[in-house]
Amino acid sequence: MAGYFPILDWGRDYSSETLTNDLIAALIVTIMLIPQSLAYALLAGLPAEMGLYASILPLLAYAVFGTSRVLAVGPVAVLSLMTAAAAGSLALPGSADYIAAAMTLALLSGIFLIVMGLFRLGFLANFLSHPVISGFITASGLIIAASQIRHLIGVDASGHNLFQILSALAGALPETNFVTAAIGFPVLIFLFWVRNGLKPLLSRLGLSQRTIGFLTKAGPVAAVAVSTALVWFLDLGRHGVSIVGDIPDGLPPLTIPSFSLSVWAALIGSAALISTIGFVESVSVAQTLAAKRRQRIAPDQELIGLGASNIAAAFSGGYPVTGGFARSAVNFDAGAETPAAGAFTAAGIALATLFLMPLLFFLPKATLAATIIVAVLSLVDFSILKRTWSYSKADFASVAMTIAMTLGFGVEVGVSTGVALSIGLFLFKTSRPHMAVVGLVEGTEHFRNVKRHEVVTDPHVLNLRVDESLYFANARFLEERVYDMVAANDVLEHVVLMCSAVNEIDASALESLEAINQQLGEIGVKLHLSEVKGPVMDRLKRAEFLNHLTGEVFLSQYQAAAHLHDLPRARTEDD
Amino acid sequence: MAGYFPILDWGRDYSSETLTNDLIAALIVTIMLIPQSLAYALLAGLPAEMGLYASILPLLAYAVFGTSRVLAVGPVAVLSLMTAAAAGSLALPGSADYIAAAMTLALLSGIFLIVMGLFRLGFLANFLSHPVISGFITASGLIIAASQIRHLIGVDASGHNLFQILSALAGALPETNFVTAAIGFPVLIFLFWVRNGLKPLLSRLGLSQRTIGFLTKAGPVAAVAVSTALVWFLDLGRHGVSIVGDIPDGLPPLTIPSFSLSVWAALIGSAALISTIGFVESVSVAQTLAAKRRQRIAPDQELIGLGASNIAAAFSGGYPVTGGFARSAVNFDAGAETPAAGAFTAAGIALATLFLMPLLFFLPKATLAATIIVAVLSLVDFSILKRTWSYSKADFASVAMTIAMTLGFGVEVGVSTGVALSIGLFLFKTSRPHMAVVGLVEGTEHFRNVKRHEVVTDPHVLNLRVDESLYFANARFLEERVYDMVAANDVLEHVVLMCSAVNEIDASALESLEAINQQLGEIGVKLHLSEVKGPVMDRLKRAEFLNHLTGEVFLSQYQAAAHLHDLPRARTEDD
Repeated sequence: MAGYFPILDWGRDYSSETLTNDLIAALIVTIMLIPQSLAYALLAGLPAEMGLYASILPLLAYAVFGTSRVLAVGPVAVLSLMTAAAAGSLALPGSADYIAAAMTLALLSGIFLIVMGLFRLGFLANFLSHPVISGFITASGLIIAASQIRHLIGVDASGHNLFQILSALAGALPETNFVTAAIGFPVLIFLFWVRNGLKPLLSRLGLSQRTIGFLTKAGPVAAVAVSTALVWFLDLGRHGVSIVGDIPDGLPPLTIPSFSLSVWAALIGSAALISTIGFVESVSVAQTLAAKRRQRIAPDQELIGLGASNIAAAFSGGYPVTGGFARSAVNFDAGAETPAAGAFTAAGIALATLFLMPLLFFLPKATLAATIIVAVLSLVDFSILKRTWSYSKADFASVAMTIAMTLGFGVEVGVSTGVALSIGLFLFKTSRPHMAVVGLVEGTEHFRNVKRHEVVTDPHVLNLRVDESLYFANARFLEERVYDMVAANDVLEHVVLMCSAVNEIDASALESLEAINQQLGEIGVKLHLSEVKGPVMDRLKRAEFLNHLTGEVFLSQYQAAAHLHDLPRARTEDD
Repeated sequence: MAGYFPILDWGRDYSSETLTNDLIAALIVTIMLIPQSLAYALLAGLPAEMGLYASILPLLAYAVFGTSRVLAVGPVAVLSLMTAAAAGSLALPGSADYIAAAMTLALLSGIFLIVMGLFRLGFLANFLSHPVISGFITASGLIIAASQIRHLIGVDASGHNLFQILSALAGALPETNFVTAAIGFPVLIFLFWVRNGLKPLLSRLGLSQRTIGFLTKAGPVAAVAVSTALVWFLDLGRHGVSIVGDIPDGLPPLTIPSFSLSVWAALIGSAALISTIGFVESVSVAQTLAAKRRQRIAPDQELIGLGASNIAAAFSGGYPVTGGFARSAVNFDAGAETPAAGAFTAAGIALATLFLMPLLFFLPKATLAATIIVAVLSLVDFSILKRTWSYSKADFASVAMTIAMTLGFGVEVGVSTGVALSIGLFLFKTSRPHMAVVGLVEGTEHFRNVKRHEVVTDPHVLNLRVDESLYFANARFLEERVYDMVAANDVLEHVVLMCSAVNEIDASALESLEAINQQLGEIGVKLHLSEVKGPVMDRLKRAEFLNHLTGEVFLSQYQAAAHLHDLPRARTEDD
């Protein structure tokens, strides 16, 4: 029971000290989350209040079902972008259908996550490789930043990929509203400075780390307060500065997402991708933070936690949510100890919706856009291209392809192509495995590649190490390589397949081994196996192959060698 | 040059003895191929002569470009079935558009094969696993046999999958033409007897193996001759017995397949599948037969040979062809030595089109149907289900799924599903690799699973053998397992990852190793690697990881053990 309700686990030992720590963390995260929630709703093309609604009930749901002690759930940049793309394919941004589509996406994502969790399918997310994730985060960071420039300069210019956005911006540039830009750019520069220049300055002033942390997090709040006050006092709305305007105050309403089959059919693919990407982002940060305190999270239960959050979002006027990287790190640094901190954050946001909304009437959208740009540009990291280029061309190809396709065709196409390419390249590599002829490293019982090490060999015995599981994609390749090697050696009497790296032999490979055994037998060469692993051997024993095998199965390559030829013995006394 | 024109290779040493052997083999194959070609054209829904045309120029083209010495090319059962399905989706069987579609399929298949050959993509065919091939051959054998029953009983009943065919047959049963059935079933029984009962009988009579082989191959010709004579003398055409009728005599005409873009777009997918399956069938038989004589074939050049054959078919009134299993085996047994035998067979068929056609006017279709049924039922083999069930559930699932989907939805859906499933299951297995804690087998330097072998261990050192390449799909799994094992052991000081089965470490897995190294470092446990393979080590040296590694990289697990703990030494004198 506690497996599905982790709250029963940590709730039992809740102390007043824990309460204090959770409350402090919740306060800091709340302050950070208010402008972020408004900004991400704007990015998703939704009314500002939906960002706040997505930061109330979903947090409570996660506090009950989630396993991370410090994960801070809510709207995040990438999912907001994906929501905009998916809902935008059905309806005009801001329309009632668009809003309903965003809530339906949250519902479908929630169902998808819970089903994945109940069937323990969390491992599927592992097929999003690190290069693919890095690539699409970098590319979507660029797209998001570009998409916000229009708010900074007060024009209308949008698009679904980087090139559409940039060309729309170029076209709209003559219509720049300079008053808006006069707010947007200073705020942008201020926020970059807060992120990069404030901390060293405060350190030199001798302030405590905690105070410094609090002040740097309060930067966006200060920007919101000052720019809102400016717009109000100078009545800049009259000069064409776009403002947030009337946000309905009060707690989230009960909302019913669409249950239309055609809407579901149109959104289900996007919902699957949104939930998978949200899960990967969330689980990465949860695992990293948990490990720092020697805690563990349960990925399959995380699916249920995030699923519950999304369903809560769907029924309380929100849109797809997940665990955010920056806010969870802040929560962790601020000392949050249990998911109760998340619940207190929810209460904080709820209070804000009750009392702060009138204050935000004059908040310029340019300020929110600047907040988003600063947040997402910190995610853009092209160094992965350089690192993978030197480490592995296959990984480089996955990153480069994901970035290019995401920039050119959006996140959904980018991620799908990246995943397909990384799986394809993996299969390609395993279909032509590395094989090494090995010999004995003198003075040991260890066998290594004759091309790389000083080793002892015997012309009558071919010791072949196959560096891959044997399965359908490489079975025929193995046959060909063995026949080639055997054909090149007249005095050969024995072939020993060293199976230390063979983790599986499937039915197709078994056929190939049968064929190799028979072909070698016909020319008087015996086939032996060595170092066959337990699970592989168990299976071979259930087939006919071992009865036909012309040679033997040896526990170790050294035993095979000791049997089959006169090698210089490392330790003659014992043999 | 000789690589692309193998004829330059074998043509050089062509002797009169080789000529004799090739001529004898060609005669036997020609006799076998005439009724088969007519029958398969019938199966494909095409005029009978197209089967013969597909057995003339394509054979010459293969003789020039193919690398197998004994492969007999021509129309085969499975490709005829697939041609019928693909052409049938565009036009009515027998119509001019249908015939054009069949020739266009040959053209597209030929182009596809040649492109694959030029780009050396033959390895892609390896992703059709043995279970998938067995499954679809068995299932299509059943479909083909069922589809021919209508000719045996003289009714009109067809369909695209087994259930459609069987229900159409059941509906048409009352209209059975008993005269047709009175020819069809005796022929069927006779052909089964020739295949199974004639050989033992002739052996008891003391005939030579060569004579026996010739007589059993002549069975279908005898059936054709006798049933044709019967229909002619008794004028059974008047009693509703369907006959082949007028076959235009003369050599194949020059034909131009369709070059309409919409037709190409409609057929390209089917052509890709037809050529892949044809290539797999052909290469399997070519490789098996070549190995018996210690010859080799070049799979990528085979693509070009088969591609040339199909293009020849497209321009000479034929349809998709490939190397047939039964006829190649007959060619081999009859002593064919070079592809010239194929050219002589082509000449034989050409002579038949010139002079034999009037004799075939009264040939009943029921006889051809019986020929097909006997041929394809020999391909049906359900024992693969039993064998894979006991050997590997994943392989069983692939066979069963391929059979079920092929029977239910046709060859294209069946093969695609089978391939997707077998790749999916492979990826699933590699995503949760087997890991074994290993210890020293006393008296050796060999380390094996503590659960399966009597081994020596040290509580301060965890020797963990990971039985899989480390890549994105299992990187996180590795992290979790290591953390779990470390958490369960208080006195641990060292973790040694034994990498004998790790054939790759990709960028995602490298991140995980960095994380493991850091996490273990923080709790004072050192991470070591052992038995890292050359190619993996080369790559690791290009990354930062080795600089951060808290422990060492050992050549062998035994060296790691000797360094890290006091194990009972096998041979104290030398260490």
